[in-house]
Amino acid sequence: MTRVRIDLFVSLDGYTSTTDHSPENPMGQDWGRLTEAYAATRTFHERVFGDTSGAGTEGIDDSYAAAHFEGIGAEIMGAAMFGLHTYPDNPDWKGWWGDEPPFGTPVYVLTHTAPRPSIPMPGGTTFHFRSTAIEDVLAEAVETAGGLDVRVGGGVSTARDFLRAGLVDDLHLMVAPILLGRGTRLWDDLPALDLTHKVTTEVAESGTTHVTFTR
Amino acid sequence: MTRVRIDLFVSLDGYTSTTDHSPENPMGQDWGRLTEAYAATRTFHERVFGDTSGAGTEGIDDSYAAAHFEGIGAEIMGAAMFGLHTYPDNPDWKGWWGDEPPFGTPVYVLTHTAPRPSIPMPGGTTFHFRSTAIEDVLAEAVETAGGLDVRVGGGVSTARDFLRAGLVDDLHLMVAPILLGRGTRLWDDLPALDLTHKVTTEVAESGTTHVTFTR
Repeated sequence: MTRVRIDLFVSLDGYTSTTDHSPENPMGQDWGRLTEAYAATRTFHERVFGDTSGAGTEGIDDSYAAAHFEGIGAEIMGAAMFGLHTYPDNPDWKGWWGDEPPFGTPVYVLTHTAPRPSIPMPGGTTFHFRSTAIEDVLAEAVETAGGLDVRVGGGVSTARDFLRAGLVDDLHLMVAPILLGRGTRLWDDLPALDLTHKVTTEVAESGTTHVTFTR
Repeated sequence: MTRVRIDLFVSLDGYTSTTDHSPENPMGQDWGRLTEAYAATRTFHERVFGDTSGAGTEGIDDSYAAAHFEGIGAEIMGAAMFGLHTYPDNPDWKGWWGDEPPFGTPVYVLTHTAPRPSIPMPGGTTFHFRSTAIEDVLAEAVETAGGLDVRVGGGVSTARDFLRAGLVDDLHLMVAPILLGRGTRLWDDLPALDLTHKVTTEVAESGTTHVTFTR
């Protein structure tokens, strides 16, 4: 049975996306602090950097990181996450993930502009562009996933759209033990997931609190 | 060396005080949900209800609850927590805590109105009323504590005043695994405590995450 899954980073003060980007520092400082424990895991080193030397942390953070990559049959992401807002006029833009993106599945990119032709990439990733309602894109992704899960990869506004629409079965939060004081708040105007989902909490060696909501 | 300590309840979505009070339900439903794990502890049963039967939970929540009561030499609270706003015209009002309040120390009540005479109570609690700056009240409380700690008991706006002024050495948060969607947000406009304090996180059997900031 396909489940719809989201993983998000959150600070102790509830910010899930950072806003301190600048031309000199396109990612900003806050994003690095928010994602530090995840980026340190062995799974991240292996899956995102292709580093199979065994470098990186093991333990609780790594087990959640590994679970993040397991059992995904299709992915959905917003236009901004793919880079359509950054490169709106470049029909050859293929996303930020290089020649062999780490998804290895069909990836549905949500867009409000005229959809581009699909882009097959080495390694099993194919980017599809859809301008229909999120429910319709999700139905297609579920069909494509063939019994595996569908991951809503981000960005935050896309994740919040799916959460607000009640479409998410599994939400996994990585709560970093830091305060950002600025950014996009995760929880504003979301439904009370704790009433429809089971909540678990677990602290990793890094001090990150992993919170899961499971329907 | 006297330390200034605060314990607060927070929901996963960052609300530390609830706003769903009504004449029919003066505490509101949310407050009960937010404080459920703490109120279930053996320490709470013993210290607040005077129930020495051993009823209540043990474990991690209880060890934090017990620590809350240890080593306090003086307490500071806001006027609302004492009830001065609720009973402004009753000079005989002695707070919500009955004939023998659970503090057992001098308690400094902050007020903007003309201070009342001090009220000595059985069990070692004496309520003093002060209309001076929080720094001055704190200095007096530290002096009175005689090397023990000073607890800022609340309410939330008083706690936030002390946090904003950088006066707090130890902040302990009990993060309940619930979403409230309404209330007073803890973190708005507070300084980045994680840069000045060491942060720890620990999950209790109840699912409550205990977060401490220690200077």
